[in-house]
Amino acid sequence: MRDYCIGIDLGGTFIKSALVSRDWQIVRDKQSPTPAGGGPDAVVAVMARDALELLAEQGLSHGDIVGIGIGSPGPLDLKNGIVVGMPNIPGFTMYPLRDRVSALTKLPAVLENDANAAALGEFLAGGGRDIENMVLLTLGTGVGSGIIINRRLYRGSFSQAGEVGHLLVEPEGELCGCGQRGCLERYCSATYLAQYAVRRIEAGQDGMLAQRLKAKGTINSIDVNECRKAGDALAIETWNRALRFLAMGCVSLCRLLDPDRIVIGGGMAKAGVADLLDPLKAFFVEEHWKVAPVHTELVLAELGNNAGMIGAAGVAWEKHGQ
Amino acid sequence: MRDYCIGIDLGGTFIKSALVSRDWQIVRDKQSPTPAGGGPDAVVAVMARDALELLAEQGLSHGDIVGIGIGSPGPLDLKNGIVVGMPNIPGFTMYPLRDRVSALTKLPAVLENDANAAALGEFLAGGGRDIENMVLLTLGTGVGSGIIINRRLYRGSFSQAGEVGHLLVEPEGELCGCGQRGCLERYCSATYLAQYAVRRIEAGQDGMLAQRLKAKGTINSIDVNECRKAGDALAIETWNRALRFLAMGCVSLCRLLDPDRIVIGGGMAKAGVADLLDPLKAFFVEEHWKVAPVHTELVLAELGNNAGMIGAAGVAWEKHGQ
Repeated sequence: MRDYCIGIDLGGTFIKSALVSRDWQIVRDKQSPTPAGGGPDAVVAVMARDALELLAEQGLSHGDIVGIGIGSPGPLDLKNGIVVGMPNIPGFTMYPLRDRVSALTKLPAVLENDANAAALGEFLAGGGRDIENMVLLTLGTGVGSGIIINRRLYRGSFSQAGEVGHLLVEPEGELCGCGQRGCLERYCSATYLAQYAVRRIEAGQDGMLAQRLKAKGTINSIDVNECRKAGDALAIETWNRALRFLAMGCVSLCRLLDPDRIVIGGGMAKAGVADLLDPLKAFFVEEHWKVAPVHTELVLAELGNNAGMIGAAGVAWEKHGQ
Repeated sequence: MRDYCIGIDLGGTFIKSALVSRDWQIVRDKQSPTPAGGGPDAVVAVMARDALELLAEQGLSHGDIVGIGIGSPGPLDLKNGIVVGMPNIPGFTMYPLRDRVSALTKLPAVLENDANAAALGEFLAGGGRDIENMVLLTLGTGVGSGIIINRRLYRGSFSQAGEVGHLLVEPEGELCGCGQRGCLERYCSATYLAQYAVRRIEAGQDGMLAQRLKAKGTINSIDVNECRKAGDALAIETWNRALRFLAMGCVSLCRLLDPDRIVIGGGMAKAGVADLLDPLKAFFVEEHWKVAPVHTELVLAELGNNAGMIGAAGVAWEKHGQ
């Protein structure tokens, strides 16, 4: 009986792998540094080794495994299992990641966008359980996201759906790395939130957050939140500005997709209910239309860094399970 | 053999009904004035009479008909077939439209949002044929829309999906009737486009469009387009501003839904390829991200006012057909 999948979350720093059961529990997992300097073959060798070690350590054989799901940064050619390119790991240009992992492990493999995998993970086992339609937003360097529609990952017609971070929220707005102006993530990701504060400080704004920047040389979203709680004016403004933009993004998601839930994850979501979720909800209600009540719930993600592995396993079930 | 559906498009001015075949052709149709002053029972009586007349005139009996689909303005309770309220026709408050039509015609009926019905119509028989994922945008008083995902109408978790006109595109933007600020439709619908020009003229802007407003007392999007073609500066600015906002909306749709096509309809789309579609495409390409090529096609709607009837018939097939 094939009762397990292996989910692999390929990142620029770590390769995280897990043996996942039919009820979406992580039975065993491991983490290895990504040998980014060794080229894609070295990376694939670690992925395959870790996957096979998970089996052996758990006393399982190939006959127990449905397949391997791989969540990877992109852009990807999902249909053919190919990494088109990968900004953080050199050498992955038109690289047949899926088939290489499959060849080395002798297991069926499937490739998925890492943000989609995380969304499926939260849907299967986290903040999106038992609903029909869900969006995951992860607040980190950018705003990652994935969409679940009718209980399935929605990939779009060209495998590019679910890029909530690149919704346009301001005409002639900030220039994004993607080439668009006014992308949502430039206003509310952890990185760009801190960048906004730095720009204000460089333009002459003083206060606790400015002093912290001077002392440390850099500030992040945690600094902003700490100074906010201590009453610093710029920190309060910076935090609220980001949450208001994020709330606008959530409203647009409701107007378009009308989901049961929007699940908020990523490093910045560690700020928690009182500091992040509750003020976000307040802005969301303010920005939300008034012609019908608020139906969509905003909740925090539950799986943290495990979402990607569980979701990658979920993709393998979807593709290779019964 | 049940080979036909009846599609009804209920509007504030006209009730349009059609007998629709399995291949989405209108076999026979009719149009009656909406007796808006007579209350909902009078409206339903006309709907039922027209539906039964379509059968009789075509020599068909009840056994030939799968059911009746009704596209209606809302808000609606789709599940229960109830009109929650209707701004343009008094008396429709918590009115069981579906069951009343069914009782009077002795045919199964189903209720659908009119914008969703139009989107399904274009998908089945118009600008969205033979694809997987599509969005219809209709440029009229506001921006109506409906979403097709995986070849099905997508309604969302609370029957409120597909409100592209209420995507937020400007922080602290124009106040919309829905209570939100910065809704897309306030920048690019036919009505609001003209309203923008009027405001500019009232603020002192002169020229051909201003003269036309003075002469006629009112201007619409056709006036703006005509004066634009004649070289009027304000008309050019007004038209391009609206199309650029619409292009931003299309880009956001691509980032979120990555559809095969975005279909543009409504009164303003009658401006056609050279005046509307081509400049819209140019703005769309400018606003679109540069990290991957443009995949989504922008096309004009093909069915005009028939889309709603055909789509309403399609909803009846979906619900009551095999």
